[in-house]
Amino acid sequence: MTGQRDASADLPLVDLERARAVSEQLLVAVGARRDHARATVENLLFADRSGIASHGLLRLPLYAAAVRAGGINADPRMRWVTEAPGAALLDADAAFGQVAMEEVLRWIGEQRGRAATVAVAVQSSSHFGAGGYWTRRLAEAGWVAIGVSSTGPTVVPFGATQKVLGTNPLSISLPARDGEPLTADLATSTGAYGKVIAARNAGTAIPEGWAVDAEGRPTTDPEAAMAGALTAFGGHKGSAVAVLIEGLSGVLGGSSFAFETEDIWSNPASRMNVGHLVIAIDPAAFAGAESTAARVQQLRDAVRGAGEGVLAPGDPEATARAQRQQRFPLAPSTIEAIDRMAVELGTPRLGDASSDPAP
Amino acid sequence: MTGQRDASADLPLVDLERARAVSEQLLVAVGARRDHARATVENLLFADRSGIASHGLLRLPLYAAAVRAGGINADPRMRWVTEAPGAALLDADAAFGQVAMEEVLRWIGEQRGRAATVAVAVQSSSHFGAGGYWTRRLAEAGWVAIGVSSTGPTVVPFGATQKVLGTNPLSISLPARDGEPLTADLATSTGAYGKVIAARNAGTAIPEGWAVDAEGRPTTDPEAAMAGALTAFGGHKGSAVAVLIEGLSGVLGGSSFAFETEDIWSNPASRMNVGHLVIAIDPAAFAGAESTAARVQQLRDAVRGAGEGVLAPGDPEATARAQRQQRFPLAPSTIEAIDRMAVELGTPRLGDASSDPAP
Repeated sequence: MTGQRDASADLPLVDLERARAVSEQLLVAVGARRDHARATVENLLFADRSGIASHGLLRLPLYAAAVRAGGINADPRMRWVTEAPGAALLDADAAFGQVAMEEVLRWIGEQRGRAATVAVAVQSSSHFGAGGYWTRRLAEAGWVAIGVSSTGPTVVPFGATQKVLGTNPLSISLPARDGEPLTADLATSTGAYGKVIAARNAGTAIPEGWAVDAEGRPTTDPEAAMAGALTAFGGHKGSAVAVLIEGLSGVLGGSSFAFETEDIWSNPASRMNVGHLVIAIDPAAFAGAESTAARVQQLRDAVRGAGEGVLAPGDPEATARAQRQQRFPLAPSTIEAIDRMAVELGTPRLGDASSDPAP
Repeated sequence: MTGQRDASADLPLVDLERARAVSEQLLVAVGARRDHARATVENLLFADRSGIASHGLLRLPLYAAAVRAGGINADPRMRWVTEAPGAALLDADAAFGQVAMEEVLRWIGEQRGRAATVAVAVQSSSHFGAGGYWTRRLAEAGWVAIGVSSTGPTVVPFGATQKVLGTNPLSISLPARDGEPLTADLATSTGAYGKVIAARNAGTAIPEGWAVDAEGRPTTDPEAAMAGALTAFGGHKGSAVAVLIEGLSGVLGGSSFAFETEDIWSNPASRMNVGHLVIAIDPAAFAGAESTAARVQQLRDAVRGAGEGVLAPGDPEATARAQRQQRFPLAPSTIEAIDRMAVELGTPRLGDASSDPAP
């Protein structure tokens, strides 16, 4: 959840309960089970409430389109391919990534007291939303948690011209004494693809260093960037991390690499075979849960105290969530996209009561 | 092992066997056990052979000084504080970090077939050399491996003035079919501290973005950088990763954070209480060892094929090692520092046969 915050000051506010109901009904209308719709929508709402619009309801109509086109399977037969103490592989049968991850979290919860270190790989999954949502929930349950995922092809390795990598998110959460896990959650691309699209639509340039054109030359032109690729963050170091996350996400679970797949954002019928890997470690087997949570708190305090206005990872998102308990800002274009689909499906619209929700 | 390559063309070549013997005798002379000296020196030689001079024999006289001053304990009583299937905490009693890591790798090896996912935390350790050496050895033994460590205080979080973080290395290795693990190994600082010192000595500027002065302002003046701090790589994203690595390295094992300790490089008597965390995952419990190694190979091939001259993570280091099987280049200042100490201790010198080793 780092660095993809929206400029939300002028956006209409939507009511959280209404957005939840409208979104769930929309996914149910395209064929999702009620509990699957709920799990998916909760993840998207968490992102919007955290100020991460790129992973919020913006994705809802895209998910719904993918269900209708066959890229996401709304009635999956998920199956555990292998299971051992502390290690398992889930075949998600093209489910919503969120549905796959709920099953992963359920399985990890069952390991408490059986295995102190747990790794779960997922194959045949799809977009799981904001990764920090999942590691944060594990940390709320007391685990030290690391999560990675593959995505569609978007990013060039350092110095390259072919986008063989995805935006390959990495999230890490540590349980903290105040109850709010210390969380880093980042795409390993320099900038968000959604912001490149926004710049194209607005006719503005993108920041230097974000993208290369089709010949691999640096560009600030969003059109050229979309014909080319995003760069990995942090130069050759970030590129190395991105390559290894591509590996961690895929090689244990047998999912597709980015360069072997096609994004549902460009082809909603694409069965992407996304891979995830989640690692969870129980502090009780080490220095203890209490000591760990106390030390995480001290680390966060030290970072916050390291200079004027310095924030610890996750602070901006936690602040946004605290302010968005009943309502949250949402881009008109997102409201319109949801409502176009709602009208088509005969489900309730979001926009007709967006700023002034009915009682 | 990414991005700290030396410009070695004009350096004298030293004989590997001779360097090994001289270095081991030097550590034994300050009180190290023969097997501890050997483990430590192998790790340093691996770095020099890989072209990572910053983690090679450059450190040897510093280690020896730390042993003599008490910062490193040459006769440690290491002890497993907790042990469970797949999870353990080692108290390294201020041993060489390399000695602690040899014990960690031994313990992980014993877990094969007992636990498919393993995490080992280490407290009261010291500098473990190049992190990729350890994860690479685990991957050679078939594990998917992740390793992190704390260090002394060197790095400011994004936008901060206080160096509450270390250079916090991250290494990840995946077993590959050709036998050479796919490895990313990076400090989470933008540049290496050793290169800042080198620029100061040479009277040159350091690259933009590497450092801030004591007031937190960006600087290219190496003196100002040394009075200030290094930046984390990759802007706010890399800073978030660095903070979470600080946490992963320390909170499970109960070691010190960077801001609570003092580097042995500045005070060789400092007992740093460095923390490490190693995670190892057995592919046999997932898609299988053979499938995993084949997929890693495909990923590496795809990265290499992503553009003209593109290298996969670890490629430059593997090339350097292939060329340095009997001899390797070493900076005259390193040879002199080792030989000054050798003369003092009455052990064999490196320099007297550096370019033309005696038979």
